[in-house]
Amino acid sequence: MLSKQKISQLKKLHSKKGREQSGQFLLEGWKSVQSAAEAGVEIDMLIYDEQKIEDPRLIKKLERSVKELFVASARELSSISETVTSQGIVAVLPKRSSADLLPSVLRRPKALIVAVDSINDPGNLGTIIRTCDWFGADALLIGSNSVDLYNPKVVRATMGSIFHLPIIEDADLNVLIEQCRTARCSVFAAGLDGSEDVRNVGFDPKSVVIIGSESHGISPEVSALADTKIMIPRFGKAESLNAAMACGIILSRFRL
Amino acid sequence: MLSKQKISQLKKLHSKKGREQSGQFLLEGWKSVQSAAEAGVEIDMLIYDEQKIEDPRLIKKLERSVKELFVASARELSSISETVTSQGIVAVLPKRSSADLLPSVLRRPKALIVAVDSINDPGNLGTIIRTCDWFGADALLIGSNSVDLYNPKVVRATMGSIFHLPIIEDADLNVLIEQCRTARCSVFAAGLDGSEDVRNVGFDPKSVVIIGSESHGISPEVSALADTKIMIPRFGKAESLNAAMACGIILSRFRL
Repeated sequence: MLSKQKISQLKKLHSKKGREQSGQFLLEGWKSVQSAAEAGVEIDMLIYDEQKIEDPRLIKKLERSVKELFVASARELSSISETVTSQGIVAVLPKRSSADLLPSVLRRPKALIVAVDSINDPGNLGTIIRTCDWFGADALLIGSNSVDLYNPKVVRATMGSIFHLPIIEDADLNVLIEQCRTARCSVFAAGLDGSEDVRNVGFDPKSVVIIGSESHGISPEVSALADTKIMIPRFGKAESLNAAMACGIILSRFRL
Repeated sequence: MLSKQKISQLKKLHSKKGREQSGQFLLEGWKSVQSAAEAGVEIDMLIYDEQKIEDPRLIKKLERSVKELFVASARELSSISETVTSQGIVAVLPKRSSADLLPSVLRRPKALIVAVDSINDPGNLGTIIRTCDWFGADALLIGSNSVDLYNPKVVRATMGSIFHLPIIEDADLNVLIEQCRTARCSVFAAGLDGSEDVRNVGFDPKSVVIIGSESHGISPEVSALADTKIMIPRFGKAESLNAAMACGIILSRFRL
């Protein structure tokens, strides 16, 4: 049984502050928990509604490995859940800290590193993570002025890719991109004005691609670290491309 | 002053049925109304809160051309608005019926036509419209099993591109894609298994690109109309790409 105290602890994970204090985050839904299990990541706590079991084998598999397991009522689950209609399963996972991964990535002869600056829309950040995973990026640096990586909407939009992609959150982009430059990465920034057509850009096997938000772009300090500003030519009348879309198109040019 | 009857009429536009009955849809927010004004589209009704005027010139400009103009209180606007916090401006526009545009597009020597099948996520459809506009698609065909084009979340996600792109909604894709084939278009379908690598695909100046949803793919009947199934190669571990992302990457291959 879930105690009232436990429920109130879990609800604290709805806020960034609560997640920072406990070092954990919430994962909701059968598909998301399945992704976590497949990726072999640690699960601190699993809570599910016996009336809503979609995948009994998943429960059986996780039963042995999770630290704490609770069966809860629909009412209890919906009080823990952040979504309007709970799918009947919630997991608590330790945040995946990767602050020290950059040096080992930079020692590789080839590395595709993506850095995001001021991405505030959770769906956009989630889609960027999913797309970086698809195109096999070696690391994602999330600037500290972006939405929190463990925001449930971000986690959901990654569709499990949060468990595949090496991510550095709360990153000081100035410092980390400077480290990449020292390790002989070429640095590209997606921009609009005064930029080079992506068709004419020669990507380097060791590259950093910086993506900014549609509304704020990339901050001048971070932008100044780029060797090349690149733009995706426009053929119609749209004012801009969605930031995640620009990221995906640039990564596809890098890989394909 | 807005009568109670008028307010209840406007609220009917929240549902697809209401939009079908009146042939109109709601557009919210200063930026969206600005996009409509710039595109020179007809506006049946404009309602705004005098306390929240962001762009007095826009009001001045539209004053002369809109059929009906109302100043409303914040309370009235929030009762009309579909968003939690109204931006203080709502417009009513006639739906943009383009059912008969296909023959003229097909007479062109070059045509890029995008067809979407079972796209149910409003954000995805909106992003597809914005991306088709960016890459200058000549027409978008929205299969009748997709989310309603005039759903406010779709309209918002298009970022004004709904006013630029020629769109056929509620389309019978089997019939329309067959018309495209007769007019000598090559038909490509985005898929996963048994598909050709997008790098090896030779697009035709007259092409139709069919995009399905990530969960349901493209229906077998529509898929059977394709000459070539194309896939975007994967380098990492993500299970799939977002449908709008796949669309954007394929259009970028077509154009760039």
